[in-house]
Amino acid sequence: MKIKRIIESIKAQDADGAWITRPINIYYLTGYYSNPHERLYALLIKPNGEQILFCPQLEVEDVKLSPFTGKIISYLDSENPLLKARESLSVLLVEAEHLTLQRQRELRQHFDTQQFGDIDETLKHLRNIKSSEEIEKLTKAANLADRCVAIGVDYLEEGRTEREVVNHIENEIKKYGINEMSFDTMVLFGDHAASPHGVPGDRKLQQDEYVLFDLGVVYNHYCSDITRTIAFGTPDNQAQRIYEIVKEAQTQSIKAIKPGIEISEIDKIARDIITQHGYGEYFTHRLGHGIGIEAHEYQDISGDNHNVLEEGMVITIEPGIYVKGVAGVRIEDDILVTNNGAQILTTYSK
Amino acid sequence: MKIKRIIESIKAQDADGAWITRPINIYYLTGYYSNPHERLYALLIKPNGEQILFCPQLEVEDVKLSPFTGKIISYLDSENPLLKARESLSVLLVEAEHLTLQRQRELRQHFDTQQFGDIDETLKHLRNIKSSEEIEKLTKAANLADRCVAIGVDYLEEGRTEREVVNHIENEIKKYGINEMSFDTMVLFGDHAASPHGVPGDRKLQQDEYVLFDLGVVYNHYCSDITRTIAFGTPDNQAQRIYEIVKEAQTQSIKAIKPGIEISEIDKIARDIITQHGYGEYFTHRLGHGIGIEAHEYQDISGDNHNVLEEGMVITIEPGIYVKGVAGVRIEDDILVTNNGAQILTTYSK
Repeated sequence: MKIKRIIESIKAQDADGAWITRPINIYYLTGYYSNPHERLYALLIKPNGEQILFCPQLEVEDVKLSPFTGKIISYLDSENPLLKARESLSVLLVEAEHLTLQRQRELRQHFDTQQFGDIDETLKHLRNIKSSEEIEKLTKAANLADRCVAIGVDYLEEGRTEREVVNHIENEIKKYGINEMSFDTMVLFGDHAASPHGVPGDRKLQQDEYVLFDLGVVYNHYCSDITRTIAFGTPDNQAQRIYEIVKEAQTQSIKAIKPGIEISEIDKIARDIITQHGYGEYFTHRLGHGIGIEAHEYQDISGDNHNVLEEGMVITIEPGIYVKGVAGVRIEDDILVTNNGAQILTTYSK
Repeated sequence: MKIKRIIESIKAQDADGAWITRPINIYYLTGYYSNPHERLYALLIKPNGEQILFCPQLEVEDVKLSPFTGKIISYLDSENPLLKARESLSVLLVEAEHLTLQRQRELRQHFDTQQFGDIDETLKHLRNIKSSEEIEKLTKAANLADRCVAIGVDYLEEGRTEREVVNHIENEIKKYGINEMSFDTMVLFGDHAASPHGVPGDRKLQQDEYVLFDLGVVYNHYCSDITRTIAFGTPDNQAQRIYEIVKEAQTQSIKAIKPGIEISEIDKIARDIITQHGYGEYFTHRLGHGIGIEAHEYQDISGDNHNVLEEGMVITIEPGIYVKGVAGVRIEDDILVTNNGAQILTTYSK
């Protein structure tokens, strides 16, 4: 199905092929993941459905063990793989958001490419709607993120540092087979969580403050992303009030989720609630983002996005209020858009 | 000094500015590091020395705390930073190996850029020669890599898995303030090390086999990269013989290091020794690579590189022999090219 859609795009643009270079998109299309670093790595798809993977010689054995069944053109560091292909591709669709000027020059030179079109949008739209197999992996990743929060909460103790809690979570979750987090795990205490790009450090946990956990795991190439803000003791009244407003904003925006609603509407529901309570200027970011084989992927859940939600999209909803010297509160869930509403994949209590 | 060289390149190419977009190069030039993900992030340098950093609003406070003293143009997700700059840059030097076609279109549109030149080579050559301050950080990173190997060796025990040893090293080194490895830590037992892209897994350590450690840390943005192949008990004769050949190849190629010698010559010395002993076809990669703010950076230490070594370069020398079913042996050090020879920064015994 995926390849069929790529071929449709190739034909619609009268092109001679599509040249996919983003490793995560090659994984999406082939089931084989590799990080080639500076080496050339690309999947060529032709209008007749032929697929050719260009990869370093070192990887050939691994490719053969993968689900990919197309042709492989492998090369040593001393060889130029484009010379080995001897293709003539006058019109080529590329990922304009990934292909560099240098790689474009090489394609011009070796494939005699005269004209470049874009395949980015096609891939974005494909990835936007998750298959049942993908949803299964995302659900598992979400469950493991819940587990991480539980591990972190159990470990909270006056005097512990943010960094110690991060390390403990990342060590413990390895026992569940997780060796990669989907981004740098964030554990921030008290008003340190009001710093929007705070980095966990040596700050020690004190009685009666909030602890913000923002983390996710990579399970079988699929990501999760959860935020919980947990009271350690009894935070002061203003902090508690902020928590309740964020929770209400999150609850109401999730309630509105269903196929056909404009995405900006969802953002507006959360933002209006926060603004009505006087904290509008302290909610400084978009409401959420798509999630899948990348922790942040298409599409933005923001006021600027006039697309509508569709069944099979998986997104985060994560309103927040950050007041310096007082508190930083964010609550985030991973959510599947179902045929008539929303299914919340992350389930840790709020 | 760095900025002066960029300005020289701008003037030599009659350009109106240089547009630097690789985050690691922005760090190199400004002392400020950020990973902008999909957001626009760039340093504009003008012929008169003016520097403008384009970054998300969220980062402004952090930039102000950094050594960067130029102008900042910040933007919200809903804004277009290029519109805020209102520059007209007819000829612009860019990183052709980093700038995407999409970003190029935006520059054409908003800065009215007609012509693009390259700044890649200038940056590569600058970074190729390390300052004394950089050498200090690289030395510290190397010492910490030695420490990681020591931690791993102390932890070896029959029945332990590769993954357990990796986890133990990464946990323990955190006590030294290291929260990031320079690449995925590799610990491979016995002939598993003969798989060139082996991933540490559940294989259990057995008596009388080699253990290959390939790892490095990031210390203050600078990387190290060491490989040691350690006998656990007494590996069989052929494996031991392979070890001695690799060690001899490494020793002799390091001995030849001095300013002025062609890099291909260094590769040849190691490769000839391994070939003379009949293992030429089992040494399947280049001899080494540059190392600095990236674990692998310019330049390749390979038979194809006809540049000469220069004082101040820091490179790895890492010959290896990989025989399936027998053993995989590699020995790697980080090496500073001095005015009359080589200084080995990694010092764990071989």
